[in-house]
Amino acid sequence: MFSPFCRLLCSGVEVKGGEPLRVESGDGFILHLSQACLGEAKKDKGNESVCLFVNFDDQKLVLGTLSYEKIPQIPFDLVFEKDFELSHNLKNGSVFFSGYKVAQPEYPFTQINVS
Amino acid sequence: MFSPFCRLLCSGVEVKGGEPLRVESGDGFILHLSQACLGEAKKDKGNESVCLFVNFDDQKLVLGTLSYEKIPQIPFDLVFEKDFELSHNLKNGSVFFSGYKVAQPEYPFTQINVS
Amino acid sequence: MFSPFCRLLCSGVEVKGGEPLRVESGDGFILHLSQACLGEAKKDKGNESVCLFVNFDDQKLVLGTLSYEKIPQIPFDLVFEKDFELSHNLKNGSVFFSGYKVAQPEYPFTQINVS
Amino acid sequence: MFSPFCRLLCSGVEVKGGEPLRVESGDGFILHLSQACLGEAKKDKGNESVCLFVNFDDQKLVLGTLSYEKIPQIPFDLVFEKDFELSHNLKNGSVFFSGYKVAQPEYPFTQINVS
Amino acid sequence: MFSPFCRLLCSGVEVKGGEPLRVESGDGFILHLSQACLGEAKKDKGNESVCLFVNFDDQKLVLGTLSYEKIPQIPFDLVFEKDFELSHNLKNGSVFFSGYKVAQPEYPFTQINVS
Repeated sequence: MFSPFCRLLCSGVEVKGGEPLRVESGDGFILHLSQACLGEAKKDKGNESVCLFVNFDDQKLVLGTLSYEKIPQIPFDLVFEKDFELSHNLKNGSVFFSGYKVAQPEYPFTQINVS
Repeated sequence: MFSPFCRLLCSGVEVKGGEPLRVESGDGFILHLSQACLGEAKKDKGNESVCLFVNFDDQKLVLGTLSYEKIPQIPFDLVFEKDFELSHNLKNGSVFFSGYKVAQPEYPFTQINVS
Repeated sequence: MFSPFCRLLCSGVEVKGGEPLRVESGDGFILHLSQACLGEAKKDKGNESVCLFVNFDDQKLVLGTLSYEKIPQIPFDLVFEKDFELSHNLKNGSVFFSGYKVAQPEYPFTQINVS
Repeated sequence: MFSPFCRLLCSGVEVKGGEPLRVESGDGFILHLSQACLGEAKKDKGNESVCLFVNFDDQKLVLGTLSYEKIPQIPFDLVFEKDFELSHNLKNGSVFFSGYKVAQPEYPFTQINVS
Repeated sequence: MFSPFCRLLCSGVEVKGGEPLRVESGDGFILHLSQACLGEAKKDKGNESVCLFVNFDDQKLVLGTLSYEKIPQIPFDLVFEKDFELSHNLKNGSVFFSGYKVAQPEYPFTQINVS
C-alpha cells in the first residue's frame, strides 16, 4: 500500500528485441520500476529464457529472467534517480515494463525541523 | 506495509471476456492496481494463457499473463492518475482486478515548508 | 518497507470450509489484507484448487486460487475501509488470512495546510 | 519502496526444528516480518513440505508452506506489535526469518493537528 | 508504491562466485535490498540450486535459494542500517543484487511534536 504525498505519474514502455531503450526520469522525478512482462505468448517460444538488463551509472546489471511458459512476469521494487537503459536478449518479441514517476522532494529532508 | 495518511477506498472489478472495462479514478484520486486473478478454475481451461492489457494515455501495454493451472493470480504495484481501460483475451470467463483508491494530495508537496 | 506513523495491530483469522467469516475493521481502522495460505498439507488434496472470495459493498469478487502442491500461499496488498466477508470453496480444511489494522486518519488530509 | 521516517533495525533469526522461538519486538518497536526461507537444500528432502506457524495473542496461525524444490522462500508483509512465537514442522533443519524493527510512534497520531 | 520523502539512490552489485562482497550503506543511509537474480542462464546449470547468504552483525543467515530453471530471481524487502556481506555458493557464475539507499532520518522521530 502507499501514501501518495507526491505527484505520481503512471509510466509504461514496450522494449522491442534488439532496441535498447533509454528511459529518462525527467528532472526532479524518481522512476519506480514495478514490473516487467512478456507480450502475448507464442506457441514456439515456450521454453525460451529472456534475460533482462539495465545499464545504469556505467554498470550493466541483470534484472531477471522471463519465460513464456513459467515466468511471464516479474515484480520489481527498483528506483532510478537518473537516466537508465533497459534491454533484453529476446530476438523477436517485446518486453513491457511498467512503473511510475514520483516527484522528488526538493527540500533537504534529513535536516528538517518540525517544531 | 503502509501508512495511510490519506483516505483509502477499497476497489474491485470483474472484467468479462470481450468487454473491456473503463476505470475512472475519480477526480482527485489515484488508483492503485494491486492484483489480477482468474475466476474459479474450469477443468478444460488448464493450459490456456490469458493475456492482460491496459490502455492508458494512447498506449496499449501488456500487464501480464495468467493461466488456470500455473498462474491464477498476479500481484501488481501500479498506479493510475487518469482513466484507463482494462481488457484481456479470455473468451469465456472473467478476470478480477483488485486495488484501492487514494486521495491525491492537492498541495504542491515538493514546495512544502514545515517550519 | 514501511513507516508506521499510525498505530498498527497484527491481525489473523482462520476461515473454515463452509463458514464464511465476517471481518470488522473496527471504527476508525483500515484493514490491510497481507496474505492467504492453506493449512498443513494433506496427502490426498494435492491437486485440489481452492478459490478465495470476498464479499464487499454488495460485490462478490474472486481474490485468488490456492492449491496444496503448487500455490500454498498468496501475498496480497488489499485494503478494506468497511466490513467484508471472506470465504472459500474448500470443503474440509481451513484458509488462514493475515494482515494488520491501521488507525485511519481522522483529519481531512487532502485539505491540510502545513505552514 | 519505503520512506524511513523512523529508526530501522535489521533483524534475522534461525529457527531450528523442534525449537519454537519467542521473538520480542522490544518496547516501542514494531516488528515487520519480511520473509521466511529454508536453509541449504539437502538432496533427500526435495518433496518435503514445511509448514510455518505463528503463535500470537493466544492464536496459532499458519504462515505458509515451504519446500526445498518448489518453494524455498516466501515473502511476507506482516507486522507484530507484541511478542510472538515462530515454529515449523521440519524435524531436521532450520527456517530463516528476516525482517526489521521500526520505532513505533509514541504520539496519538489520529488526533494530530497540523496548523 | 512509495512516497520518497528522502533522497534515494539506485544501487546494484554483481557478486561473483567465491568472492563475498562487503556492502557499505554509507553514513546516514539505510540500504534496502530489493531483489537477487542469477545471470544469463547456462544450459548445463538448469537444476543447480544456489543458496544466498548474508553476514550481518556476527550472524550468518540464509537469504534464499535461486535456480536457473525454476527460480531465477527472488524479491526481497530487507533493510540494513549497518554494513553487511553478501555471498552465495555458486562456483562459476554471478548473482546480481539490486536495491536502493535512502537517507536516514537524523531527528528523533519518536519524540516529534507537531503543534
